Amino acid sequence: MNTNPIAVFDSGLGGLSVVRHLRRLLPNEAVVYFGDTARVPYGTKSRQTVVRFALEDARFLLQFEPKLIVVACNTASALALHELEQALPVPVLGVVEPGARAAARLAEGGAVVVLGTEATSASGSYPAALHALVPDLEVVSQACPLFVPLVEEGRGCDDPIVQLVADTYLTPLRERGVRVAVLGCTHYPLLRAAIERSLGPDVHIVDSGRETSLAIQQLLAKHAGLCRTGRPGSMRCYVSDNPDRFRQVGSRFLNEDVDQVELVAPERYATPLQLATDIC
Amino acid sequence: MNTNPIAVFDSGLGGLSVVRHLRRLLPNEAVVYFGDTARVPYGTKSRQTVVRFALEDARFLLQFEPKLIVVACNTASALALHELEQALPVPVLGVVEPGARAAARLAEGGAVVVLGTEATSASGSYPAALHALVPDLEVVSQACPLFVPLVEEGRGCDDPIVQLVADTYLTPLRERGVRVAVLGCTHYPLLRAAIERSLGPDVHIVDSGRETSLAIQQLLAKHAGLCRTGRPGSMRCYVSDNPDRFRQVGSRFLNEDVDQVELVAPERYATPLQLATDIC
Repeated sequence: MNTNPIAVFDSGLGGLSVVRHLRRLLPNEAVVYFGDTARVPYGTKSRQTVVRFALEDARFLLQFEPKLIVVACNTASALALHELEQALPVPVLGVVEPGARAAARLAEGGAVVVLGTEATSASGSYPAALHALVPDLEVVSQACPLFVPLVEEGRGCDDPIVQLVADTYLTPLRERGVRVAVLGCTHYPLLRAAIERSLGPDVHIVDSGRETSLAIQQLLAKHAGLCRTGRPGSMRCYVSDNPDRFRQVGSRFLNEDVDQVELVAPERYATPLQLATDIC
Repeated sequence: MNTNPIAVFDSGLGGLSVVRHLRRLLPNEAVVYFGDTARVPYGTKSRQTVVRFALEDARFLLQFEPKLIVVACNTASALALHELEQALPVPVLGVVEPGARAAARLAEGGAVVVLGTEATSASGSYPAALHALVPDLEVVSQACPLFVPLVEEGRGCDDPIVQLVADTYLTPLRERGVRVAVLGCTHYPLLRAAIERSLGPDVHIVDSGRETSLAIQQLLAKHAGLCRTGRPGSMRCYVSDNPDRFRQVGSRFLNEDVDQVELVAPERYATPLQLATDIC
């Protein structure tokens, strides 16, 4: 048994939609979460900057001696997973690989469309992961930059702006024979019904966050790393800005109250070289 | 005559819409611009974080020995102007005061609506500046969080999504007897026609960026600080991330090509205490 926490980081609060599945599936596990709300979003930024931020976020979490670090942010998973694996002394799991596995399984000869941020779409990480599994799979990348600000503003699937935006991005895909759509961003599960209406009834939806929580369970079970105390696992959140907003908006992603949120001063996360010496 | 440059900073590329007016009005002036594209946007972040970022941005610009620092970002002007004035050894000009002056002049007994980011609206800076000029003026703050991502995605006034969003935010204001609308964010001038359609034909539009360039001209003329070389002033841009995206999207804001753009490493701007010792 391993009672050390699972550490999760994200560019902001979106990663709580991954933690939501994790808490349901593995209720005994302690979770420590870092949301880089001072520098959110990552999806419009360069690879170099996303790699730097991701390394800083992960190194902050090392102080909690996690048994595993989960990169809940699709953009960071797509752009920085290799660098994180190289730099960190614990296993690292991103959301791209589990999402791609589920999509490949469901495609059955049809096309897969990956919905994501600008940076995730430009990275080609999902197509690469999908083609490693099914070399001749047809994969379409569709950036949906407005989905994140729509969710952050509190708009849901019944909002006419949301439906118009979803239709604008997605109805042209109806002609492509799409069988599977991957929700390749932590915010998109909150717009799932609108996305389904735009794509039509015959498309399987894959939620990378949900698939990742299943992959975490498998990984921990395989290496005897599960926590079986029988008690509800604790959850602590750390953010680089605005804990009140995190608490308020975050509960919609987590589907429970976000209680313990602590503001982290910049010198505790934004100095990677020093932290690497001190902690690693 | 003073040939030192005018320094301008913004959370990203939006401040180029201010520089556009500045270059037209004062074509001999040299301009140095810093866009904090690694940490953009500021409009959803806390006062504490915006103040820290603004101080770092401004201190980076001090190395160019500017005769004036312009805070082109409405959010930073609304939240951090006082701290900037205290900390910097050169005059500092924000966009809130000039925008408020123009709005107060045009109101003539009607209401003023200030359109801005979440943070600008929550700060109450525009209402405070307006009430200092006209104590009994009716002022309405309207946050328009989707306008920035719409512009960043390249959507313009003919886009049906833009018009639906503008109508959703602004048509309820038609009943309020609004006489003046302040474009209290650098991105909003690019959506001006859609905003005008939503508000109706009887509303004066104030572009804070344009008013600020007029205020700069007055300030420099008064203190004999104008540059009268007769030659076109140079323009250099520095960004904390993604110079290619800045060049590409920025030209829409500047209305001319963005040529000289240099990427700045984080240790050159994100360590305020060291910089304060070195430069200030």
